[in-house]
Amino acid sequence: MKVEYINPFITSTISTFRTMLGCRLARKEPFVKGVVRPEHEVSGVIGLSGKAKGTVVLSLSREAALQATAAMLGEHPPEINADVADAVGELTNIIAGASKAQLEHLKLNVSLPTVISGRWHTIEFPREVTPICIPFGSPWGSIAVEVGLLEQPVPAAGGSAEA
Amino acid sequence: MKVEYINPFITSTISTFRTMLGCRLARKEPFVKGVVRPEHEVSGVIGLSGKAKGTVVLSLSREAALQATAAMLGEHPPEINADVADAVGELTNIIAGASKAQLEHLKLNVSLPTVISGRWHTIEFPREVTPICIPFGSPWGSIAVEVGLLEQPVPAAGGSAEA
Repeated sequence: MKVEYINPFITSTISTFRTMLGCRLARKEPFVKGVVRPEHEVSGVIGLSGKAKGTVVLSLSREAALQATAAMLGEHPPEINADVADAVGELTNIIAGASKAQLEHLKLNVSLPTVISGRWHTIEFPREVTPICIPFGSPWGSIAVEVGLLEQPVPAAGGSAEA
Repeated sequence: MKVEYINPFITSTISTFRTMLGCRLARKEPFVKGVVRPEHEVSGVIGLSGKAKGTVVLSLSREAALQATAAMLGEHPPEINADVADAVGELTNIIAGASKAQLEHLKLNVSLPTVISGRWHTIEFPREVTPICIPFGSPWGSIAVEVGLLEQPVPAAGGSAEA
């Protein structure tokens, strides 16, 4: 996965948290996701397709998910519930949409977000993809964005246009 | 979500399990996913986008995920590991691809699959979507496919072509 594809996801995450939630994120060093798997309780997952195929995962600690929902809805949810799932899905959607706009040449479309919760869930990407994990520090606890993108092979020009 | 959009996912799941894994699925009654959440340990998630946006989730019990991987790889995995994630991701991809081919007018593209594992994970769809859950019985235990699709609004014809 090309390094220049990572930056849009970093800047979109930071600006979404700042403008939507009034929350300043401190970006940490991105790394190739391998054996080290950051533990988070809630993850928003959204698919990308176009001239590349991919997935974006926004993962939050329990506290960060609750606080982000409170900042969006103006009310603190008592637990991880449907409001939290909705808020995290919406944040994932906004981050993916803003990133896509910065990667115009890939002509990406986003799918619907789904939101996974469960304390010990893990999320795996297909073997042919090298997902990059971007960890962020926040006043609410740890947050991470994982991105896996696979460019689609370009069909050979004039391949079957013999007649 | 239109009922006629469900059938392609049912037939694709049954035929994928039969041809790829030699496993006969017994289809049970589909239901609107709400408070009742079938418990599964491994889920493949893949996004759809085009004239509709959506997500397909293939969920398997621990035993079904292990047996499906064994049938694909010819070797029984000792636990839920990267091989299982790969096999479940690939099955999800094939089912989504075959379903998409039957829903040609929606011009769907599939994203990359991701695979969630964790005994108590739950998967939520956005509030505006009514996901349908299709449970299947199998000799390996319970399997389910959940589909949420949202048709994109069609832009008004000639809307901004005033000049």
